[in-house]
Amino acid sequence: LVRSMSLRLDDFPHTGTLIYDSTHALIPAAAISTLAAEKLSEAIRVKGKATVSIQMSCQTLPDVPSFNVIGEIRGSERPNEFITIGGHLDSWDVGHGAHDDGAGVVQSMDVLRLLQRIGYKPRHTIRCVLFMNEENGLRGGKAYAAEAIRKAEKHVCAIESDAGGFTPRGFSFEGDDAVFATLFQRMKALEPLFEPYGMKFSKGGSGADISPLRSTKALLSGYQPDSQRYFDYHHTADDTFDKVNKRELELGAASMAALVYLIDKYGL
Amino acid sequence: LVRSMSLRLDDFPHTGTLIYDSTHALIPAAAISTLAAEKLSEAIRVKGKATVSIQMSCQTLPDVPSFNVIGEIRGSERPNEFITIGGHLDSWDVGHGAHDDGAGVVQSMDVLRLLQRIGYKPRHTIRCVLFMNEENGLRGGKAYAAEAIRKAEKHVCAIESDAGGFTPRGFSFEGDDAVFATLFQRMKALEPLFEPYGMKFSKGGSGADISPLRSTKALLSGYQPDSQRYFDYHHTADDTFDKVNKRELELGAASMAALVYLIDKYGL
Repeated sequence: LVRSMSLRLDDFPHTGTLIYDSTHALIPAAAISTLAAEKLSEAIRVKGKATVSIQMSCQTLPDVPSFNVIGEIRGSERPNEFITIGGHLDSWDVGHGAHDDGAGVVQSMDVLRLLQRIGYKPRHTIRCVLFMNEENGLRGGKAYAAEAIRKAEKHVCAIESDAGGFTPRGFSFEGDDAVFATLFQRMKALEPLFEPYGMKFSKGGSGADISPLRSTKALLSGYQPDSQRYFDYHHTADDTFDKVNKRELELGAASMAALVYLIDKYGL
Repeated sequence: LVRSMSLRLDDFPHTGTLIYDSTHALIPAAAISTLAAEKLSEAIRVKGKATVSIQMSCQTLPDVPSFNVIGEIRGSERPNEFITIGGHLDSWDVGHGAHDDGAGVVQSMDVLRLLQRIGYKPRHTIRCVLFMNEENGLRGGKAYAAEAIRKAEKHVCAIESDAGGFTPRGFSFEGDDAVFATLFQRMKALEPLFEPYGMKFSKGGSGADISPLRSTKALLSGYQPDSQRYFDYHHTADDTFDKVNKRELELGAASMAALVYLIDKYGL
């Protein structure tokens, strides 16, 4: 039994993936809510022991076909060079998956809408990818990267939004060692354009779905919103639509669109 | 009729102060919700005119005595030099006044609690002032400054939290022209200690309640949390306790305590 990984005290257990290794028996395991953990700890403290009864209904079903959903604006100068933005379609469906990752899905689609709205004709192909199966195996992200390699699609940059629809705080960047230092230095030249909005560029993780693109030498970026509330909602029945603030969500999409625009226009 | 000053579309009218000048008749006035304003605009657009029926129950009652609430930790070296922190007790009571300004009240009290909790003995007197009547005349702030001047209390710095209990983004500073440039420069030397937490120090407004202290040459500071949600709730029936995130609120109190500690320990 694990205490859910949240600083908030509430009644929502946080679900997620359990990984077994080959050396241990496949025992049942569960995360309990923070309030339940407080009660259990108190019971053990007072009485020295506690008996817990838990009813679980989760099961692993056979694989079925599923799909990434892809839309793009073809590049006018370099149609076979891609700037990819994305989030993931699947969620732990105890809730709506609103912040994880409905927000990233909406923002990624919105980047294309915003670029079209201002009448911008991108030089590179701007591709929005809504990845499938991020939470439980990364099949969508792996298949996307395999297809990109098979088709010799050059990925300039991939940006993922998978940290919630909160106020923008910046972008993190990572990539193949051989190219990262140079590319990150070029991105840092753009950072002053984002700083007036309270955004910083840092070296750090990008996103699970785009991580298989690392071997293509693409620069990988993670959209970084304010992080204080994400793990209150993440993987719980409380990750519902009403927890997303429309303006904060839109600011994230606008930030991603601005970064895509700059990379497209001025190159890496 | 005024459209409420919010970017959110909802049914909450935002209340506030109406100021008449002597050259115009005292006509009734009201703010309507953003959704009501959309409906009204649409009706006028379609039909060319609209008839509105509004029932209002607000009234101005005679003055009654009310009070600032003050608590302090006496300074060990300079007890008659004050670092003041505060928020305001009164609110537009259509809601709880949770963000405006219950958050500032709780955070200001929490600064004293945090300094005591770590066993810190301040050099200056650290004073928490919960101001009365911010929303409707600033009587508490004016009376506090008048008393400070009457008692020759030297105010080194005053910090107000009155922008909601959201994630910390920084502090703004202002003050008497003759002293501000020097004091702000000294504060900027502390800014690198806050930057890792995404906080910046800027020149700008502080807080209504502490503004009458400007003439005492005190440095005035406003705690600046993330601003995206404040005007969704501000002055509405929706400014309720459940809209405050405990961790975001605590981070604000911790930020204020850190600033007070640094000013107290190293002086201005």
